[in-house]
Amino acid sequence: MGNTFGHTFAITTFGESHGGGVGVVIDGLPARLNIDLDHIQTELDRRRPGQSRLTTQRDEKDLVEILSGVEGGASTGAPLAMLVRNADARSGAYDHLRELYRPSHADFTYDKKYGNRTIAGGGRSSARETIGRVAAGAVGMQLLDALAARSGSAPPEILSWVDQVHSTAASVDEDTVSSLQIEADPTRCPDPDAAAAMTSAIEQARRDGDSLGGAVRTVVRNMPLGLGEPVFDRLEADLAKAMLSLPATKGFEVGSGFDAITMTGRTHNDPFVPGADGVPTTRSNHSGGVQGGISNGAPLRFRTAFKPTATISSEQDTVTVDNTATTLAAKGRHDPCVLPRAVPMVDAMTALVLADHTLRQLRHNLL
Amino acid sequence: MGNTFGHTFAITTFGESHGGGVGVVIDGLPARLNIDLDHIQTELDRRRPGQSRLTTQRDEKDLVEILSGVEGGASTGAPLAMLVRNADARSGAYDHLRELYRPSHADFTYDKKYGNRTIAGGGRSSARETIGRVAAGAVGMQLLDALAARSGSAPPEILSWVDQVHSTAASVDEDTVSSLQIEADPTRCPDPDAAAAMTSAIEQARRDGDSLGGAVRTVVRNMPLGLGEPVFDRLEADLAKAMLSLPATKGFEVGSGFDAITMTGRTHNDPFVPGADGVPTTRSNHSGGVQGGISNGAPLRFRTAFKPTATISSEQDTVTVDNTATTLAAKGRHDPCVLPRAVPMVDAMTALVLADHTLRQLRHNLL
Amino acid sequence: MGNTFGHTFAITTFGESHGGGVGVVIDGLPARLNIDLDHIQTELDRRRPGQSRLTTQRDEKDLVEILSGVEGGASTGAPLAMLVRNADARSGAYDHLRELYRPSHADFTYDKKYGNRTIAGGGRSSARETIGRVAAGAVGMQLLDALAARSGSAPPEILSWVDQVHSTAASVDEDTVSSLQIEADPTRCPDPDAAAAMTSAIEQARRDGDSLGGAVRTVVRNMPLGLGEPVFDRLEADLAKAMLSLPATKGFEVGSGFDAITMTGRTHNDPFVPGADGVPTTRSNHSGGVQGGISNGAPLRFRTAFKPTATISSEQDTVTVDNTATTLAAKGRHDPCVLPRAVPMVDAMTALVLADHTLRQLRHNLL
Amino acid sequence: MGNTFGHTFAITTFGESHGGGVGVVIDGLPARLNIDLDHIQTELDRRRPGQSRLTTQRDEKDLVEILSGVEGGASTGAPLAMLVRNADARSGAYDHLRELYRPSHADFTYDKKYGNRTIAGGGRSSARETIGRVAAGAVGMQLLDALAARSGSAPPEILSWVDQVHSTAASVDEDTVSSLQIEADPTRCPDPDAAAAMTSAIEQARRDGDSLGGAVRTVVRNMPLGLGEPVFDRLEADLAKAMLSLPATKGFEVGSGFDAITMTGRTHNDPFVPGADGVPTTRSNHSGGVQGGISNGAPLRFRTAFKPTATISSEQDTVTVDNTATTLAAKGRHDPCVLPRAVPMVDAMTALVLADHTLRQLRHNLL
Repeated sequence: MGNTFGHTFAITTFGESHGGGVGVVIDGLPARLNIDLDHIQTELDRRRPGQSRLTTQRDEKDLVEILSGVEGGASTGAPLAMLVRNADARSGAYDHLRELYRPSHADFTYDKKYGNRTIAGGGRSSARETIGRVAAGAVGMQLLDALAARSGSAPPEILSWVDQVHSTAASVDEDTVSSLQIEADPTRCPDPDAAAAMTSAIEQARRDGDSLGGAVRTVVRNMPLGLGEPVFDRLEADLAKAMLSLPATKGFEVGSGFDAITMTGRTHNDPFVPGADGVPTTRSNHSGGVQGGISNGAPLRFRTAFKPTATISSEQDTVTVDNTATTLAAKGRHDPCVLPRAVPMVDAMTALVLADHTLRQLRHNLL
Repeated sequence: MGNTFGHTFAITTFGESHGGGVGVVIDGLPARLNIDLDHIQTELDRRRPGQSRLTTQRDEKDLVEILSGVEGGASTGAPLAMLVRNADARSGAYDHLRELYRPSHADFTYDKKYGNRTIAGGGRSSARETIGRVAAGAVGMQLLDALAARSGSAPPEILSWVDQVHSTAASVDEDTVSSLQIEADPTRCPDPDAAAAMTSAIEQARRDGDSLGGAVRTVVRNMPLGLGEPVFDRLEADLAKAMLSLPATKGFEVGSGFDAITMTGRTHNDPFVPGADGVPTTRSNHSGGVQGGISNGAPLRFRTAFKPTATISSEQDTVTVDNTATTLAAKGRHDPCVLPRAVPMVDAMTALVLADHTLRQLRHNLL
Repeated sequence: MGNTFGHTFAITTFGESHGGGVGVVIDGLPARLNIDLDHIQTELDRRRPGQSRLTTQRDEKDLVEILSGVEGGASTGAPLAMLVRNADARSGAYDHLRELYRPSHADFTYDKKYGNRTIAGGGRSSARETIGRVAAGAVGMQLLDALAARSGSAPPEILSWVDQVHSTAASVDEDTVSSLQIEADPTRCPDPDAAAAMTSAIEQARRDGDSLGGAVRTVVRNMPLGLGEPVFDRLEADLAKAMLSLPATKGFEVGSGFDAITMTGRTHNDPFVPGADGVPTTRSNHSGGVQGGISNGAPLRFRTAFKPTATISSEQDTVTVDNTATTLAAKGRHDPCVLPRAVPMVDAMTALVLADHTLRQLRHNLL
Repeated sequence: MGNTFGHTFAITTFGESHGGGVGVVIDGLPARLNIDLDHIQTELDRRRPGQSRLTTQRDEKDLVEILSGVEGGASTGAPLAMLVRNADARSGAYDHLRELYRPSHADFTYDKKYGNRTIAGGGRSSARETIGRVAAGAVGMQLLDALAARSGSAPPEILSWVDQVHSTAASVDEDTVSSLQIEADPTRCPDPDAAAAMTSAIEQARRDGDSLGGAVRTVVRNMPLGLGEPVFDRLEADLAKAMLSLPATKGFEVGSGFDAITMTGRTHNDPFVPGADGVPTTRSNHSGGVQGGISNGAPLRFRTAFKPTATISSEQDTVTVDNTATTLAAKGRHDPCVLPRAVPMVDAMTALVLADHTLRQLRHNLL
């Protein structure tokens, strides 16, 4: 259970790093959406390891195939299913891991919950599972763009970037940062100085057999007003769930986030000011674009914390499946920092939440 | 939409601060659970304003009535519905607020989304909405206790407390803190020194017409192993959604949380060590009791950030519904810090998530 | 579980014939719908027993109270909750039934599934449970009317009537039958001759301590084109579920229904003919207004079969809860034919399905 | 929307007769179920056209591939995805149909709802869509078998057969009919005389360019007691939905079904009699194995009506997409009777409903 996300624009993902492939079924896509397969592939390429010297150096091709739901380049209203084949299962590469539990991986909990570990490459807990999400997220973005074009408004602009890697924090102007700037560096950090420092830190971590935590920051400009369903499906609640469902995430904050703890109402409240187009806006945006669970038209602002990758190549204490102390020294190369690859995952989950809430909101425009 | 939470143990809440009452329908409760009405009322009393000089001084009685689903003191398998009447609607008290938008309240977004504001007392965005959650959460706790008793294990012990108010952070031993210690002070902070400082700060804020942010920390001891459904319904993802669905929350972190950003894999990974009963445990608990989205038997650990209450009694800039600048000087008393009352809400949402996942997990014990 | 119906316009019912009351929570209602409380009460009155000499002679007042979701006479976008109090629990009246299983009631299965029987008046399996559905169905009708008015089209006209009682079948012109004709007779059969014969048969059954089966026929005129979601949520599939979820139902057929068995494609197919307004129509309507699971604009036509009421006053063989043979001679008056009261229940379930699918369909009008 | 079925054992199907393939994702399967791929393929072969001279003579291979969720022959707890490739899209074969609406097909309604017709082979409304259901249904059967084996009880025996084709009705002993008898004849009618008459009728219909309606009858022996969730998810309500979601179905009845209309309570009620094992049984089974929405341990009995196939080869009146009268003379061979192929579809949907309710029922065994 738990492999479906979204209520009205719902995706179901399947697949693990071994086996025939990974994919997704989108149910609830409006008919007659032009589907841009190149864009879907581009988003998948962004999340692919092996893109640069900073990430895992396996070469996954990850070519997506649309199995159903599209005819003549447009959605038919039927489920849009997509499949990415697993090129090389290589489960033998993991054989030496079958007898022990890797620290802070899902081996132990999968074993205890399911009576198996789907050890090869991490199974369903592998980052490879996110392929289906990223492919579906790209379709979600295309839907948001098409709806905005129809209504003559600017499309929501979802921009995530690497905000921090270990002790290096970026300095980024949220109002002007662009996709081009984010993609300009393999770190996906649009602050060039910070990007350089992050690169050094990541390379050093690789040499040390260690890994680094970090944070992804997201801003969505041109946010539609009125998205979010009180009380349980508040926009920020669904975003929190979306982000915490990504592998390796440990925290989520919206707007002022944890800084709100040390603020007072006088400084935290966002004063309304008359808007130029007759719609009030706010002077500050501590709310992060959401008030009462509903978007207020200001940019959506949130941040997601990622732990250091659990796979490291230095030796660690652990136990065997028989509860006996042992040590683990991982073989092969490892990905010392998942942050650059996490950016398109965060973008995708954001798009899925926005697409779902956009469709859920339609009813309130009727009467 | 969005008023149902949970998949297999599902609650639907209804009601707002005006109108006939607030309540909840629980669908999915196993039959033959002894229902302790006193305990439900106790939890409701914990969230009630007017309990001490620290909180809102209205006197809400909040007496709960079970409408259905219980016979002879035990659940029947039918939906358990509970109702708390609104004693005093007093919507007239809010009349002066109808013509303007209160900063950082839901007035503006409700107005734009629904074409109305249900202004009286905050409507559905009011803390009063949480009555249904707290009542249902108490039933969830009773279910967890009964299931543990049946299996001969210690029941999950859900303990939330006020961890920080503005700049005052508590120092609490997570392994030993008790419900008694938490309830000993109106702040619900089990560190007496911090509690005293928090009390002073809250009283000062009241005098200043201001309000304070803070954080609630939660630990669940005696956690069952195996709760959580990869990939979207990971235990921490559902908890994140649960907490961010509470009014005034701005952030959620599990285990190491945002501190993970500046850690490395070597220090963050939780080494497995042989467990006394044949089940491995971990030396540290940066994971917060969850690995791969599934509980690993270690204590569940998370923290929730709350913004300062939006209602303050000092003057603020805002706009009228006609987009004209004005000022707002709230009348009457206000609650300068929601944190003490938030504790039972966090407890309740935690219990709901655990109850749901406990029932969802049953299938994997069959084969 | 199983107490929620609908996806996008979702209702959750609660309550049983004993206890505090029965009711419903509607989640998903668009904001700004004018709520006509009198109409809701009228629909409830239609399903109430004791309306005439033909039905159960208890006097249930069934006054509905709106608990939440309405302000100033219009829906707010929040859950609309409604409650009908149980005036007189009188569970003592059922005490003599506690020690045996009533044939073809839910006593035995509830006992085995839940370990209890909620015996008083039939508990959740009682017709009283349908109060919540009928109240919500009235709101669904109001929504359909308002949406039609907005779009300048005639509102869907949902008309159900008693089509057959035991061996007496009505002869009714589906194209012209009106609500007035249906309500003209306590049988809710718009064929006066058949109504008279049904009345005699029902009175005779009462004298015999027996009960009678029957059928309700439904037609919906002014059907919108395009409602229904292939493949599982076809319009007829959701209607079938809706009707079979009503107490005492044994069958559902749409369009030609079971008569289709003995037809051939040549006679069954509905030839398209050019429509006056540029939209093709069909010459016949064996499809019942649904093709491929989607409404085609022709009148929706279906029929629901009801078994004879299980409660009869003549003596029956049965067993005690200890599996010992005994006999049951029911005391008091009984309702020898549920059909007249079933009509508003069928109307309500139809309205709920149409309202849900109307909201689900919105997405396909966007691009 | 509407492509997911089931609550706790949920399937999502995708695919149409053109495009890359059709398939299914099962979410909610317990871990450690041994998956018998041969059995899945056997069920798919049963639904395949071209099995005999009685059915469509295309040769679809329909080889199923498990994409995920199985390792070492057993379910892992992750989604089990299956794919059947479309061997030969041949959408050109349907080109002549693009300009007109085929009577009683989904062409018109799909066109109006979605703005497209996915004409090739019927698209999502094609019987080919049922491949995913049949594959998932086979897994459902395996689950039911494994759970019964675990509990030491006989597995539910799901038996569907062709009960009637046009005017030829079979005479079958429901207590003794076996799978072997059903599969003995290409008609899937276990009454040899009726089977012979059906075969003649079907061959005559083919020669006439016509098609025939019919009915499938289902009995489930060894039914577990206690399946079904009042009030909306009654076992018969979910079965009704399941059957009415199959292409070409027009009606569903359980137990006495439409015959109940002309019965009285005295004859319809199923008297309880003491059971040999201490559990009461019933003397008759007009209830069809379900009382109050919950299985009572007696055999489940229901019947599903199918209309004559819409595709016939004789000339028919219809209109063009421009609303102009024309005639359609279908080219190529057609399937004059879908009934034999419908049998495995009904079996599969039955298995899915039972598997879902078996898992939903688990909670009530806890306390």
